Amino acid sequence: MNYCSQCGGKVVLRVPDGDNRPRHVCLSCNTVHYSNPKIVAGCIPVWDNRILLCRRAIEPRYGLWTLPAGFMENGETTSEGAERETMEEAGARIRIGELFSMIDVPQVQQVHVFFRADMLGPELDPGPESLEAKLFTEEEIPWPEIAFRTVEQTLRWYFEDRRNGSFGTHTGAVRYSRRSGS
Amino acid sequence: MNYCSQCGGKVVLRVPDGDNRPRHVCLSCNTVHYSNPKIVAGCIPVWDNRILLCRRAIEPRYGLWTLPAGFMENGETTSEGAERETMEEAGARIRIGELFSMIDVPQVQQVHVFFRADMLGPELDPGPESLEAKLFTEEEIPWPEIAFRTVEQTLRWYFEDRRNGSFGTHTGAVRYSRRSGS
Repeated sequence: MNYCSQCGGKVVLRVPDGDNRPRHVCLSCNTVHYSNPKIVAGCIPVWDNRILLCRRAIEPRYGLWTLPAGFMENGETTSEGAERETMEEAGARIRIGELFSMIDVPQVQQVHVFFRADMLGPELDPGPESLEAKLFTEEEIPWPEIAFRTVEQTLRWYFEDRRNGSFGTHTGAVRYSRRSGS
Repeated sequence: MNYCSQCGGKVVLRVPDGDNRPRHVCLSCNTVHYSNPKIVAGCIPVWDNRILLCRRAIEPRYGLWTLPAGFMENGETTSEGAERETMEEAGARIRIGELFSMIDVPQVQQVHVFFRADMLGPELDPGPESLEAKLFTEEEIPWPEIAFRTVEQTLRWYFEDRRNGSFGTHTGAVRYSRRSGS
């Protein structure tokens, strides 16, 4: 951030009065500009015991597989965001279920949230962000080609809970050293 | 938003190519500026079956009672944010437990997340954002003076689960018509 989005003046990084960490503060109008983590909302769409994955047509992780998910938008709820992303990326109609996982990814200022979801039919119509969308049994999941660690962790928890016959809500954090992205 | 935070140019609200909703786009450098919901992270600190509440010394809801909570910061996890807010607002040392509630507040672009927490001692030292911090039994909770609906809902779920002898993870959304804030 170089300029104030309110008045166009120059901003500097400084600790505002009464605060305890550096923020972008405008030298002209004194507006303090905050930056906070973003929510990525997604789901685990299921049809006939198979899981819906999408192969990414965009960076990062072009060509790798993910659960449908994306940045939550203003004005929607987390579950509405997950439903919208599933329609946009896979063209799948779903009924959102319980919250299944919430995983912090502090190094990229994100929190990933996944809900369980029932597909209302097997029809798929992947959008421009997906190369393809496909249903997988547990045995067919392409583990080495999963795009994000939060998705891999969520899928592992999902299959574990399914084997145990009872679904919970799982939380965790992904921290990484060298590998970029999440 | 009036000016581009990258180059200082004028921004307009328009739907970028390949997008489906209006964003602030810079007319000079074409940067697209996104705005997304923020996470408010908090907890339910418990000492000797009593719940810690803080009386707000800041707007909105000056003078009303809340669970310790605040905007999650970049670089921290949701539970780290909840722990930091509890220290800042109440001076209470805690051990964060399980995720207890996640409540969407779409009209103010927020998602409120509360964890269960055990206090490590009864000592309190409220910071400048709190008029006071105090432990309450269920019977003592000042229901008409609770600052936010997400806090009231979380407390009601908490006491219900405690009576049932088992704590779950709860989700919901707060939508309001006339009353401002959340």
